[in-house]
Amino acid sequence: MPEFLKVKTADEVLNLIEDFAPLEEETVLLEAAAGRVLSRNVEASCHVPHFRRAVMDGYAVRARDTFGASESLPALLTVVGEVFMGQPAQHTLGPGQAIAVPTGGAMPEGADALVMVEYTQDVGDGTIEVTRPVAPGDNVLEPGDDIAEASLLFPAGWQLRAQDVGVLAAVGMRSVSVFRVPRVAVLSTGDEIVSPDAPEVPVGKIRDINTFVLAAQVREAGAVPGWTHVVPDDLDQLAAACRQALTDHEVVLLSGGSSVGARDYTVQVLERLNGAELLVHGVAIRPGKPTILARIGSRILWGLPGQPASAMIVFTAFVRPSLLRLQGISVDRSSRTRTSRAVLQRNLPSVHGRADYIRVKLSEEDGQVLAEPVFGSSAMISTLARADGYVIVPEHVEGYEAGTEVTVHLFGSISRPFLAGKEET
Amino acid sequence: MPEFLKVKTADEVLNLIEDFAPLEEETVLLEAAAGRVLSRNVEASCHVPHFRRAVMDGYAVRARDTFGASESLPALLTVVGEVFMGQPAQHTLGPGQAIAVPTGGAMPEGADALVMVEYTQDVGDGTIEVTRPVAPGDNVLEPGDDIAEASLLFPAGWQLRAQDVGVLAAVGMRSVSVFRVPRVAVLSTGDEIVSPDAPEVPVGKIRDINTFVLAAQVREAGAVPGWTHVVPDDLDQLAAACRQALTDHEVVLLSGGSSVGARDYTVQVLERLNGAELLVHGVAIRPGKPTILARIGSRILWGLPGQPASAMIVFTAFVRPSLLRLQGISVDRSSRTRTSRAVLQRNLPSVHGRADYIRVKLSEEDGQVLAEPVFGSSAMISTLARADGYVIVPEHVEGYEAGTEVTVHLFGSISRPFLAGKEET
Repeated sequence: MPEFLKVKTADEVLNLIEDFAPLEEETVLLEAAAGRVLSRNVEASCHVPHFRRAVMDGYAVRARDTFGASESLPALLTVVGEVFMGQPAQHTLGPGQAIAVPTGGAMPEGADALVMVEYTQDVGDGTIEVTRPVAPGDNVLEPGDDIAEASLLFPAGWQLRAQDVGVLAAVGMRSVSVFRVPRVAVLSTGDEIVSPDAPEVPVGKIRDINTFVLAAQVREAGAVPGWTHVVPDDLDQLAAACRQALTDHEVVLLSGGSSVGARDYTVQVLERLNGAELLVHGVAIRPGKPTILARIGSRILWGLPGQPASAMIVFTAFVRPSLLRLQGISVDRSSRTRTSRAVLQRNLPSVHGRADYIRVKLSEEDGQVLAEPVFGSSAMISTLARADGYVIVPEHVEGYEAGTEVTVHLFGSISRPFLAGKEET
Repeated sequence: MPEFLKVKTADEVLNLIEDFAPLEEETVLLEAAAGRVLSRNVEASCHVPHFRRAVMDGYAVRARDTFGASESLPALLTVVGEVFMGQPAQHTLGPGQAIAVPTGGAMPEGADALVMVEYTQDVGDGTIEVTRPVAPGDNVLEPGDDIAEASLLFPAGWQLRAQDVGVLAAVGMRSVSVFRVPRVAVLSTGDEIVSPDAPEVPVGKIRDINTFVLAAQVREAGAVPGWTHVVPDDLDQLAAACRQALTDHEVVLLSGGSSVGARDYTVQVLERLNGAELLVHGVAIRPGKPTILARIGSRILWGLPGQPASAMIVFTAFVRPSLLRLQGISVDRSSRTRTSRAVLQRNLPSVHGRADYIRVKLSEEDGQVLAEPVFGSSAMISTLARADGYVIVPEHVEGYEAGTEVTVHLFGSISRPFLAGKEET
């Protein structure tokens, strides 16, 4: 049997995804950089601070002039000037002299330390008493003490947080090189699916749900949802839609039509696409067995189950890590984010030899997170809204007992989304 | 002493925020609805499904025709037709008859149950054997079984997740009423601050950091960063910039210039703004004491400390909950999201009588989350990038010992952002 026809485990699929190369790099302004992933190491182009800076309100002094100073035997210094915030020092400090400097102000030439204002007393006549000695360098930041020129600020592959953008601003960067984010087309197929813009829904048909849910999940994964479209179960139309989507999207999601059986259109569509390479045809998880992954040149096509709950699980388990991988984030890291530990409220039976992905609803009691399995057919939309994520019962485990602490893989990026339910009246 | 001059506790500030009314409502297309907060209860406008639907592949039958059926004594039924996916049934079922129906297909008139295909056998001549009885309603969804017309789908105040958008699509909604998101102006003041577009930075001055960090935090809070601007410490220019910002932003952030002292410009600016009402002038936390909150008509102005690390903490603790509150999310809920339990790696000393907000860096070891305090002056930008969030040592607690499990308030929306560090080389 050819390798691609073997049903793969979830780990095998994730290993394939890890081999995807990130998209090409682009330059973005700092205002748009938060959340993006660096495509290169970033080094500091200058020292921060770039001048000697006071870290407290006080007096710039020569440290040796304060040696031995105490409450009972203070050092007397002559105040010869003041440094103003945002301005260079106007005076050079000589022996026995002091210059007032505010927190963050520039230290004058000739000074090597700052005495905190708390340890001085103005005795009039332009003279201060210093009641504690300072050592050279005390309360002063030298150029580069905070960030040294040419030091590594962030390595390639680093996802920039708000504070990291502040660090880039501090060294004068106005733009930064990051990996592009994928544009994702979301196609939904099935003879029973009606476009959301259809005025009415005949008997036998249902409204499209997957393009909405999957597009929202695409956006949450930091990618850009592009064309969304409902396609009839017709090989010509499906192939034409996929070809069109592949022209200007790096990733195409096709939900429905991927179950092994009479309607296994996705694989037939792939056969019509030049250069399509089937990487995954079936995954040993439930739901999600009919999942398909293919490469078409540098582009990626996912075939997802048509049931909304199943499509959402497969997106969370595989598509999301792949979209993050294209942005430069490793599968290992993306798999470890977006989980919560929780205590099972009921037994979770499972079938040996297949990984079960069981939807759960989370709640909180006395600071403990609880997971309640969501029962009901995955064909029922209402079960979808009740679930916050899923628990994986691995293939070699025959289930978990109530009371077990398990890892819940969360559907949404809204942290601890189950709290949303607290305001229900 | 007037009430507004008293330094407030963090809880008092959060209570004030809780009283903010959400912004007005607006209608958004479903494509843009994820993450938004409903301004009204949403009820189902129709049944889902809106027709009787098979939940398995099988045969539509009259249940009574299968009563008593078994492997040894199967019921014999005549197949009189087939229902196709997405189409209404073409035949009405009579006694002794069966009609093939796929999963999700429309049930024909006259049938009251579905026999799974696994419990039937085609014996040729258009006849099937049924080897198990079914009860009326078995394997059939009645109209409204999933979602009943007029039932409450989500209450006002509910933040829509990806799957919730799918539920709205299922009942044919193309748009939904939500609270508007605030537009936020971010002004940075200080005689030492240089606009990011300045070609060079003279001695004594530093580059603006706060507009970048705060704008990124605004976006993470679901709001829209608008005008960002660096203003000199000049009362006329500050007042003019605030007036301009207030014309088309619901919220203005002004960082720097809010410490009690010679440069207490923010309060003087407020005195120049018509109808400004000072709600908070000082909060008993460190850092963040000089925090200011004011209302100007329906608009809000925050005065934040100038130190980037302090501004970021005050944003996370107070500004973020206020931006979420304007979107319709309660302070209680927003305060409980975005936290992580972690084990302290060092003693955290604290001063009695003041709440200390101490920055920490998170890491993970053997599945346990560890919090390491970040030391170093908050004037140092590099300490900002090292921190993932902060631990609060309440005013009546004199510190925590190493090994204590504490709650860490995370700066970022990227779940468990500390994992970002794992790829450092």
